[in-house]
Amino acid sequence: MKETLDRIRAVDPERMEQARARQLELTKPPGSLGRLEEIANRLSAIQETRTPAVRHPRIVVFAADHGVCAEGVNPYPQAVTAQMVMNFLRGGAAINALARVAGVELDIVDAGVASEIPDSAGLIVRPVARGTRNFCREAAMTREQAVDALSLGVEMADRAHAGGCTLLGTGEMGIGNTTAASALTAALTGLDAAEVTGRGTGADEACMAKKRSAVERALALHGPHLREPIDILERVGGFEIGAMCGLCLGAAANRCAVLVDGFIATAAAALAVRFSGHVRDYLIAAHRSTEPGHAPLLEAIGQRPLLDLAMRLGEGTGAALAVPMVRAAVEAFTGMATFASAGVSEAAAGEAT
Amino acid sequence: MKETLDRIRAVDPERMEQARARQLELTKPPGSLGRLEEIANRLSAIQETRTPAVRHPRIVVFAADHGVCAEGVNPYPQAVTAQMVMNFLRGGAAINALARVAGVELDIVDAGVASEIPDSAGLIVRPVARGTRNFCREAAMTREQAVDALSLGVEMADRAHAGGCTLLGTGEMGIGNTTAASALTAALTGLDAAEVTGRGTGADEACMAKKRSAVERALALHGPHLREPIDILERVGGFEIGAMCGLCLGAAANRCAVLVDGFIATAAAALAVRFSGHVRDYLIAAHRSTEPGHAPLLEAIGQRPLLDLAMRLGEGTGAALAVPMVRAAVEAFTGMATFASAGVSEAAAGEAT
Repeated sequence: MKETLDRIRAVDPERMEQARARQLELTKPPGSLGRLEEIANRLSAIQETRTPAVRHPRIVVFAADHGVCAEGVNPYPQAVTAQMVMNFLRGGAAINALARVAGVELDIVDAGVASEIPDSAGLIVRPVARGTRNFCREAAMTREQAVDALSLGVEMADRAHAGGCTLLGTGEMGIGNTTAASALTAALTGLDAAEVTGRGTGADEACMAKKRSAVERALALHGPHLREPIDILERVGGFEIGAMCGLCLGAAANRCAVLVDGFIATAAAALAVRFSGHVRDYLIAAHRSTEPGHAPLLEAIGQRPLLDLAMRLGEGTGAALAVPMVRAAVEAFTGMATFASAGVSEAAAGEAT
Repeated sequence: MKETLDRIRAVDPERMEQARARQLELTKPPGSLGRLEEIANRLSAIQETRTPAVRHPRIVVFAADHGVCAEGVNPYPQAVTAQMVMNFLRGGAAINALARVAGVELDIVDAGVASEIPDSAGLIVRPVARGTRNFCREAAMTREQAVDALSLGVEMADRAHAGGCTLLGTGEMGIGNTTAASALTAALTGLDAAEVTGRGTGADEACMAKKRSAVERALALHGPHLREPIDILERVGGFEIGAMCGLCLGAAANRCAVLVDGFIATAAAALAVRFSGHVRDYLIAAHRSTEPGHAPLLEAIGQRPLLDLAMRLGEGTGAALAVPMVRAAVEAFTGMATFASAGVSEAAAGEAT
């Protein structure tokens, strides 16, 4: 981990400036591609080239289970985590559909699923343990497990980078993980349980009350120990959350942009920013989740999502949807003609013609 | 035109209901794909099938010039319309880049460009006239020209439909056309010139004052005559605006969805809704433009755009960006496994497990 953190550098503001200057030469009114220009400029600075590219985009979906499910925080049985992993492997989930049409490769990683996954062909089997412990009663994981989860994410980023990937995306599956993400959000932002706890996959009132109570009890139990990011992960995190955090760190170390999916992924990304502030430069928030904890997390890491579609599914679905937008941003930046090359007149300065 | 209008029917609410029921069977928490579900359901109802598809998506870019440019409403010289058409034909504009990465076909149509277009290979040459007249002094076009512009759009929709296209997009190029769209918006919504006039391609204060004044004078001159949609087009419209309006009508007549680009395209779509209220069912607003007149137009036709990226370029760029999202919506709807087929447990009703 230390070696990875040492490799993370801020992007060069001079590169950003050069990209902004280039945008002004392209055949469009200045700034008229809005946020697409910002994304292209960032990719240019991250990749340290005037011709950035989206190559081998890849979403890594980490699955893991959560001990806090014992508190009745989720309307789905815990077995659904493994069932959905099977669904991912067979191509039947939303993330499969969205990745297919976007031309995005998927890695499905067992980062710590509790139930057995019968037919695991195609699965990357790297469980940190068979689910976390119940953080209402004890730390979710040991220090060693926290480091293992982070390392798993770094390893997946390194592997993708070695395969030529220039755009990563985070995905997750884990029944109960909005509860963990809510606890983590409270720990990172100082907000109350009620402000950062939402309906997740569709909790009803009774279920919501249990969720809020679980987050409150976790904060009461672990509050005094939630100082360093590794403590936060250990006390109230999850294996897939630690792995997504590691993926963000590994991506930044490899100068690779990361599309951050919704609420749970943003909690992991915000944790990564606590490990190294420079990670911020490599993150692209894909979409705004309907979860109430998402907005304060985004604010904490200075991100405004590209999409706002009332989605709340996770799996990396928001990241998959955003890939074509990043591709479009980069293609406009590198593939458009300039005013000079196309023989198009520029705007008259200060007056209309 | 009458024959086209007669063919436009509302989509069947029963079909929408069937699509909603199907969404609940797919392996995701109910409603968790947010607006993607709404889009897929609409495509299902429009195409009258449980397996809607995005086939041969096509954006039709209509270019035309505007007599109101004589009022000094635009910082770019009018020659830029023809120069940009050349740029489209050579593949150097933003719409070319965005269409390329989205796998979208483009039709570039001269609907009434004033300057000569030297090398027009690949151009669909159908000018209604060599630019409109200055609507601050007289009607922008004759009644016959208005009908010609509408018919051109219908013809392009029919042609795309005959080629197997199930998703159309509107695009435009025309120096001065935000001024025309502002006048049209004021006529359609009853708002004042100041409320619906924006910076367009980048007008400075002096230019903005001329723009507002031009819209005010147009409304003062034509106000008493702006009753029927055809009157509005004739008095303060443009050839590309009429053609985009016709494209929306033709799309609806062929049961084909239309991605409506930004401000100018939405003015045309709102005009189409005035011709036939059922057109509304076929429109998908692609993105929210930064132009102040866009929001009231969207409200008038009951649309909420998919994207909000501070774009203000036109050309169909917002529509091109939205195509992958419609594809994703449809692929999730038709390509996902069901809870039953995947062996995934559904949520416990009313209690957590």
